[in-house]
Amino acid sequence: MSEEWELNKSSSVPLHQQIYDYMKRRIMNGEWPVGTRIPAQRELAAKFQVNRSTVVYALGELSADGLIDSKVGQGTVVANNTWSLLAAASPPDWNRYVKSGSYQPNIQMIQQINQAEMNSNMVRLGTGELSPALLPTDKMKEMFHGSLENKFTLGYSEPKGSLYLRERISRYLHTKGIQASPSSILIVSGGLQGLQLISLGLLHSGSMIFVENPTYLNSIHVFQSAGMELFGIPMDHEGLRTESIGRLKRQHHAALLYTIPSFHNPTGGLMSSQRRAELLTVCTQERLPVIEDDVYGDLWFDTPPPSPLKAQDRQGLVLYMGSMSKTLGPGLRIGWIVGPEPVIDRLSDIKMQTDYGSSSLSQHAVAEWLSSGLYEEHLARIRTELKYRRDYTIAILVQHYHEFAEWNMPQGGFYIWLHILRPISMRKLFERALKEGILLNPGNIYDRHDQQHLRLSYAYASLDQLENGLIRLAELIRQNLQ
Amino acid sequence: MSEEWELNKSSSVPLHQQIYDYMKRRIMNGEWPVGTRIPAQRELAAKFQVNRSTVVYALGELSADGLIDSKVGQGTVVANNTWSLLAAASPPDWNRYVKSGSYQPNIQMIQQINQAEMNSNMVRLGTGELSPALLPTDKMKEMFHGSLENKFTLGYSEPKGSLYLRERISRYLHTKGIQASPSSILIVSGGLQGLQLISLGLLHSGSMIFVENPTYLNSIHVFQSAGMELFGIPMDHEGLRTESIGRLKRQHHAALLYTIPSFHNPTGGLMSSQRRAELLTVCTQERLPVIEDDVYGDLWFDTPPPSPLKAQDRQGLVLYMGSMSKTLGPGLRIGWIVGPEPVIDRLSDIKMQTDYGSSSLSQHAVAEWLSSGLYEEHLARIRTELKYRRDYTIAILVQHYHEFAEWNMPQGGFYIWLHILRPISMRKLFERALKEGILLNPGNIYDRHDQQHLRLSYAYASLDQLENGLIRLAELIRQNLQ
Ligand SMILES: Cc1ncc(COP(=O)(O)O)c(C=O)c1O
Ligand SMILES: Cc1ncc(COP(=O)(O)O)c(C=O)c1O
Repeated sequence: MSEEWELNKSSSVPLHQQIYDYMKRRIMNGEWPVGTRIPAQRELAAKFQVNRSTVVYALGELSADGLIDSKVGQGTVVANNTWSLLAAASPPDWNRYVKSGSYQPNIQMIQQINQAEMNSNMVRLGTGELSPALLPTDKMKEMFHGSLENKFTLGYSEPKGSLYLRERISRYLHTKGIQASPSSILIVSGGLQGLQLISLGLLHSGSMIFVENPTYLNSIHVFQSAGMELFGIPMDHEGLRTESIGRLKRQHHAALLYTIPSFHNPTGGLMSSQRRAELLTVCTQERLPVIEDDVYGDLWFDTPPPSPLKAQDRQGLVLYMGSMSKTLGPGLRIGWIVGPEPVIDRLSDIKMQTDYGSSSLSQHAVAEWLSSGLYEEHLARIRTELKYRRDYTIAILVQHYHEFAEWNMPQGGFYIWLHILRPISMRKLFERALKEGILLNPGNIYDRHDQQHLRLSYAYASLDQLENGLIRLAELIRQNLQ
Repeated sequence: MSEEWELNKSSSVPLHQQIYDYMKRRIMNGEWPVGTRIPAQRELAAKFQVNRSTVVYALGELSADGLIDSKVGQGTVVANNTWSLLAAASPPDWNRYVKSGSYQPNIQMIQQINQAEMNSNMVRLGTGELSPALLPTDKMKEMFHGSLENKFTLGYSEPKGSLYLRERISRYLHTKGIQASPSSILIVSGGLQGLQLISLGLLHSGSMIFVENPTYLNSIHVFQSAGMELFGIPMDHEGLRTESIGRLKRQHHAALLYTIPSFHNPTGGLMSSQRRAELLTVCTQERLPVIEDDVYGDLWFDTPPPSPLKAQDRQGLVLYMGSMSKTLGPGLRIGWIVGPEPVIDRLSDIKMQTDYGSSSLSQHAVAEWLSSGLYEEHLARIRTELKYRRDYTIAILVQHYHEFAEWNMPQGGFYIWLHILRPISMRKLFERALKEGILLNPGNIYDRHDQQHLRLSYAYASLDQLENGLIRLAELIRQNLQ
């Protein structure tokens, strides 16, 4: 539950008393209302890093006070607090509320991953983020020192986001061959929010969305929570296969196609130039709008990827998404959507209605990075670093994984899609690795039926962690092969 | 449509040619796909600040090229671009998509208000923001100069938001009598997003929400777009009337009650201490959870408001919301929700799923303001300024409005709820004022049936604008009284 309270092990107050006081306080002030489930003894012992007997003692005291109650099969719940006796009424049934919302909870393994990420000792072999060491924190400080003179505002920004920023993004997109006026650009709080707005603003419940199989979209619930369905289309080494799209479109009345052409999440693949052209042709013929997710596009190693679908789109078929999360820092929460102006108008109206726009500090920071040339400099550095990390990781795989696995050689981005050639229980592998402090992203997060892949990321862990973690993981895989 | 492109009036290229080139470019690159409606000639002339004949000429050329087409009763739409001829297929019917989303468009008057706010010459007599002159932009720069040493991160933050910030908010809430551990606090991107998360996470379609009548919630669609209904409960000078809540709750199965006890939007009212106690008692008895929206609570003039409902809530009945928007700057997009931990856990999971958290720059900034004492200093200054503005505005009302209007004397916050005593067409008044460069917030935004109130804000306009605007408005009201 709480991640911040800690036992004071050098205090003269006994540990069980500290735990008792802590839990009582939370019950008495309503943070744990009557009906709240208390975590299992085992979990509490792990959380407080004490013996289970200490926990049992503290819980016994709370139980003697009548504050908690254990029922066989139901675990321990908060039973009462003095005030509820006084008020002679029980609190609202929050549990029912928590289950009422239309939004689906995060998939359980993702929740487990999020939880494990709070532990800073964890070796994270699949995390889709740049390592903290690669984020330009110092440069960001300098930037704020130097340039806050103009354009900086603490007020609400324009409905589509700061015009100053949109002008800079318009120029930046121009270098990719995309023609977009600032009024066809919407600033969003990251690509994920862009998807959320499309789901709320352009699609009705029951809509069908074509995706690559596997896909990042399976790891989130943005469309599913709004009652939409995903339909996976296979890929080959050139990217999404296009030959069946026409037939499938007519058969399933698909409303949108979502693709990550450059440095795909989770496979690391790159869609070829020809395949891009084919995809655009078939989607034009079928009048099937496309979401092009290009959040990794700037992270190429040797040569830039083929130009985005959007650069060839003269009809307004493509909604193009970019983000600073994978390059400059996810904490900024700045991304953008480019599309036909009437669509951008609609999405911007919803954005205003749900959060009144993105942080003006973050918008200012990104505009400055783009206009000063700092962004390009930073990219150059990151590309070199990531390429080095890719080669480093591939070398480890070659040495330790060749007997039982295959993999691709990514040309950019963060990911290697590790294919384990023999049957293995992914769930078990995940749990065993976690026990040893290694956090994995199993393939079934991205394709429910997959039992043979791991998404490896060479972007996050340190080189030492990559090496030791991967060698240990090879060991674990070998032990668990069936 | 576009807010950034401007005619070059000193160019040798004729104006109609510039307009033609501009519109052609947007059609050809797909920003205005086939089917997009072109604004009316009158609107275009106003937008470009040219004679209507210049617009007519440019449109004639586009029409001769076959790019646009006028149909009687349907206005002018984009008919074609060269590429669609080549591709022999028309683009997707974006218009249908734009109408498909579940999210309702902003109410039309609010859209009109948002639009008018882009015009920096507008005198804004109802805007619920601090004047740019009252926002501490310089201090914010200094803060970034000094303190970025520790705690600053560009990575994703913890699921509930930066722990560093939540610890500071926990202490700040303590000064209001609220006991909240960091793990019972969720950082959100402003109060509006807090409401959005509650709607997605805790309520199902068809739920009924009790609100004050009038209320801020009527000006947004957060709950309505998710299929929920608002039910208005009357207020008196002590705040929300509580005597019928029990009966109404049972009758309508209300799921939540939303209230703004301190410096209510739009009425400026303050709920008395006794009424707060009564409200908490009846909601406890009825097991009716409460959202307490306290975004104006820090902006008192002479004495602090009675302590928040949350400070008396030992049962976990109240979800408490605060925000930096009305005090430090809305551009930061930082607010917080405090509630029972299982509820906060659920909301935090949804927050992660919709935008991966709030800007780390903004979170850092707010934490620094709170911990350095700068926030308290700033509040002291703002309180004095707002009180002065209130008195200044009231003096104008006394002199120019006493014949035909009544008003309250707010003890904090931004708003005066101006009651016009004789019938008037609010729509007409709004339009006429707008023509003269005065932007109003009519009462029917906050209560659909209201035709007698204006929400005045003394927070935004300059003192000169307040004086001249209000005197001119009195004149307009007099002319439009029926
Ligand atoms: C393909 C893809 N799109 C979008 C996102 C969203 O990132 P953000 O919301 O941080 O921009 C991610 C992040 O994992 C991603 O992998
Ligand atoms: C009563 C009330 N609550 C919440 C908000 C939302 O403000 P923000 O999302 O900027 O925190 C406002 C802003 O107008 C308001 O008046």
